[in-house]
Amino acid sequence: METERVMLQPGERLDDLLTQDLKIIQSDEVFSFSLDAVLLARFCSVPPRGAIVDLCTGNGVIPLLLTTRTNAFVAGVEIQPRLADMAQRNVALNGLEGRVRIDLGDLKTYHETAGHGAFDLVTVNPPYLPASSGEHKENPYIAAARHEIHATLADVAAASARLVKSGGKVAMVHRPSRLADIVSEFRAVRLEPKRMRFVHPKRGQEANIVLVEALKDGKPELRLLPPLFVHEEDGTYTQELLDVFYGRKRQLDDGQAT
Amino acid sequence: METERVMLQPGERLDDLLTQDLKIIQSDEVFSFSLDAVLLARFCSVPPRGAIVDLCTGNGVIPLLLTTRTNAFVAGVEIQPRLADMAQRNVALNGLEGRVRIDLGDLKTYHETAGHGAFDLVTVNPPYLPASSGEHKENPYIAAARHEIHATLADVAAASARLVKSGGKVAMVHRPSRLADIVSEFRAVRLEPKRMRFVHPKRGQEANIVLVEALKDGKPELRLLPPLFVHEEDGTYTQELLDVFYGRKRQLDDGQAT
Repeated sequence: METERVMLQPGERLDDLLTQDLKIIQSDEVFSFSLDAVLLARFCSVPPRGAIVDLCTGNGVIPLLLTTRTNAFVAGVEIQPRLADMAQRNVALNGLEGRVRIDLGDLKTYHETAGHGAFDLVTVNPPYLPASSGEHKENPYIAAARHEIHATLADVAAASARLVKSGGKVAMVHRPSRLADIVSEFRAVRLEPKRMRFVHPKRGQEANIVLVEALKDGKPELRLLPPLFVHEEDGTYTQELLDVFYGRKRQLDDGQAT
Repeated sequence: METERVMLQPGERLDDLLTQDLKIIQSDEVFSFSLDAVLLARFCSVPPRGAIVDLCTGNGVIPLLLTTRTNAFVAGVEIQPRLADMAQRNVALNGLEGRVRIDLGDLKTYHETAGHGAFDLVTVNPPYLPASSGEHKENPYIAAARHEIHATLADVAAASARLVKSGGKVAMVHRPSRLADIVSEFRAVRLEPKRMRFVHPKRGQEANIVLVEALKDGKPELRLLPPLFVHEEDGTYTQELLDVFYGRKRQLDDGQAT
């Protein structure tokens, strides 16, 4: 296939993105999308039009998926040049240049060019692990995606609050261990948590993923959506997960924060 | 039965408390225990000995239930004289005078007699609704149990933090809508949320009860326990709920905050 020869770098591969209609360039050495990103793209309450920004966009998986749910313009921000390049090629590969733009940049200074309050929705799948944790044995691309090397949770909350307009939404996926930190950091910048959903590997197990949506300048009133279980006892995916994953049911965005 | 003639006031009735071994005086006009209280009594991590205080104790249901799980001394604090009297009679009715004491008092000043940091565990099932909400059509006993008339969430958090020792635990049951407030108010008084469990009326429905346990001066690291579903589709109780309710399984206290 001509496209592949032209666009793929060494070590990269071309995958279907949950549907025959979207393709995505991935690389196990550099970046490949996770369940977390897909769940976030399904969970967030998208505006029908307007502008969305996806911070820490990696190879652009979330912007690509959001184009199936909204006609809003989607910007993706990525600090690592090699990943931003991969994301840009993903946009071109899917012919989405008119609807998605990838910006190589730092979320901490992105408002200087994009403007304060420029977006109706901010999505972010940030690094989960403190910069000091682990031994960073991974290569630098993976380490930066997993550890708070370029931005802390507080940086991400502050950047999200700067970029979203009053009454706009910020949706984040993270680990349950940080949930109290997320609430604290969000409220410190006037992001009020309004919807949460917890994802458990199996029934009867603790949650390992949290989805949080906040409203800029919103009033306190939180809703806890039904839990999502990923695997059946036998290890296969649950029907519910598959429905969410492939967008057959909009269970993760059935509620709207107000 | 002689006991009933002696101890019951008009409008009161005598019920089994989940087991033949415990009896409880209740009154629909004044106070009867709820699922919330039972779930909290099962959820909290009890110290094997030492001292526990239950704030907003009502008719004393939580102290009574805790005696089945620990040899610790349990104090119950209640601001309404008629409820405190009912709780005291419940202690006597079950012959628990040596292990449970009911104090008529205000949680905001209870530390003046009990002392700062006097307890290993604080449990509390506080009023859920703001003082200003609703029309307080209920009688004054019910209104005070349901609305933040005598104490706000901030008052409850501050009192709990004063009464628990450093390294001790505070367990609360509340409504999901207030979860972000609970995290904020707890952290403001050095109570770090460590364990949460969410209770859903049925599978596929939003949570309507949250159980939260915090550690005084703990490090941030939250665990989200498996969700609990109360009813099957046909309206009957789930086996899991019955097991928790009757204490047959300790699913709600299988983890220990550290």
